[in-house]
Amino acid sequence: MSDIWLKSLITATPQEGFELAITLSRRGVKYTQPDGEVLHRLRAEYANSADGLTAASQVIAVNFQTVAAANNYWRG
Amino acid sequence: MSDIWLKSLITATPQEGFELAITLSRRGVKYTQPDGEVLHRLRAEYANSADGLTAASQVIAVNFQTVAAANNYWRG
Amino acid sequence: MSDIWLKSLITATPQEGFELAITLSRRGVKYTQPDGEVLHRLRAEYANSADGLTAASQVIAVNFQTVAAANNYWRG
Amino acid sequence: MSDIWLKSLITATPQEGFELAITLSRRGVKYTQPDGEVLHRLRAEYANSADGLTAASQVIAVNFQTVAAANNYWRG
Amino acid sequence: MSDIWLKSLITATPQEGFELAITLSRRGVKYTQPDGEVLHRLRAEYANSADGLTAASQVIAVNFQTVAAANNYWRG
Amino acid sequence: MSDIWLKSLITATPQEGFELAITLSRRGVKYTQPDGEVLHRLRAEYANSADGLTAASQVIAVNFQTVAAANNYWRG
Repeated sequence: MSDIWLKSLITATPQEGFELAITLSRRGVKYTQPDGEVLHRLRAEYANSADGLTAASQVIAVNFQTVAAANNYWRG
Repeated sequence: MSDIWLKSLITATPQEGFELAITLSRRGVKYTQPDGEVLHRLRAEYANSADGLTAASQVIAVNFQTVAAANNYWRG
Repeated sequence: MSDIWLKSLITATPQEGFELAITLSRRGVKYTQPDGEVLHRLRAEYANSADGLTAASQVIAVNFQTVAAANNYWRG
Repeated sequence: MSDIWLKSLITATPQEGFELAITLSRRGVKYTQPDGEVLHRLRAEYANSADGLTAASQVIAVNFQTVAAANNYWRG
Repeated sequence: MSDIWLKSLITATPQEGFELAITLSRRGVKYTQPDGEVLHRLRAEYANSADGLTAASQVIAVNFQTVAAANNYWRG
Repeated sequence: MSDIWLKSLITATPQEGFELAITLSRRGVKYTQPDGEVLHRLRAEYANSADGLTAASQVIAVNFQTVAAANNYWRG
């Protein structure tokens, strides 16, 4: 991809870090399937599947580990 | 989401840390499927599925790693 | 939950640490499905499924990483 | 494989690190199934499966943990 | 369980560490399903399933991370 | 197993480290199913399954985390 979407892993708050983890998780999907229309259709599918949502939350959790470590856990 | 739900990863006790890990896991789901009614229906589904419960516990375990590291494992 | 079940991640031996990891894994399930009768029925199900048992062992492994790090790997 | 495709885990930016994580994830597949034609056919399959895309994003997330740690999280 | 099966995570060599990771993975299963006869039957099942074997290898990989860290990666 | 196949986690380059991660992943399978003929048959199966290949890549990613940490990420 040619656009710049990830400049830093540092965020001001844990919540912003969690939201960055969500962005990373979605980008992981988008690199594999760049077609927005297909993604839209598939999102409707897994957003209504208990297993699909748990799997999505797992990917976010793994990415949040990375972002949290990068920010020294916002220990202040 | 506009509400503030995650101000810190620091908790007083390991058990509160584990409960924060559960919150993180549920938020990961909620960001993907914000519709409370759908979530309610799906919860009933995976809460009665052995595989679904194990997968939920796995997400909690990953998030607990993050929270525990943030708190230096509450070594005291 | 109002009961106190997790006071510390520190254990005397690696084996006790592994058993604590099992407790954490089961608690992750119990927070999602608190009904003991349902849990009992589902346990019978996944305890007789190869995939279910491997998945359960995976959750324990993730939690054991946390407990082992908390205890500095019981290096002594 | 005889070609050199991985000389370093160090990247200039987090985004390049994320893209390296994607490369690692694809190489993990390619070592197991080196036949390009089969890979092409299978890619079409999982790129249209919600579960397949989430699983792919999970592998990328795990590899991104490695790349991010190698780069000290690009803390600068 | 009353028997002592895990006294230390320290091993002399990486290979012994890998074999300890296998032991941990099997114990994770055994705590959930202690019945040896059932385990024997299920082992035959997943040892002939590609997905089952990959999942087993994943659990070993997670446990090997723990054992390797405990041994400072046998850097010598 | 009586043969020595893992003497060290240290490799000269990241790529050799990645290939060691593949070896570890395959050994995890082989300890569970030592029969070469069965493995050969199953490999043909998952090497043609998108889900199987992604799962294999995930195991490699987890093992690569271990090998990369052991080598201090080949930072030089």
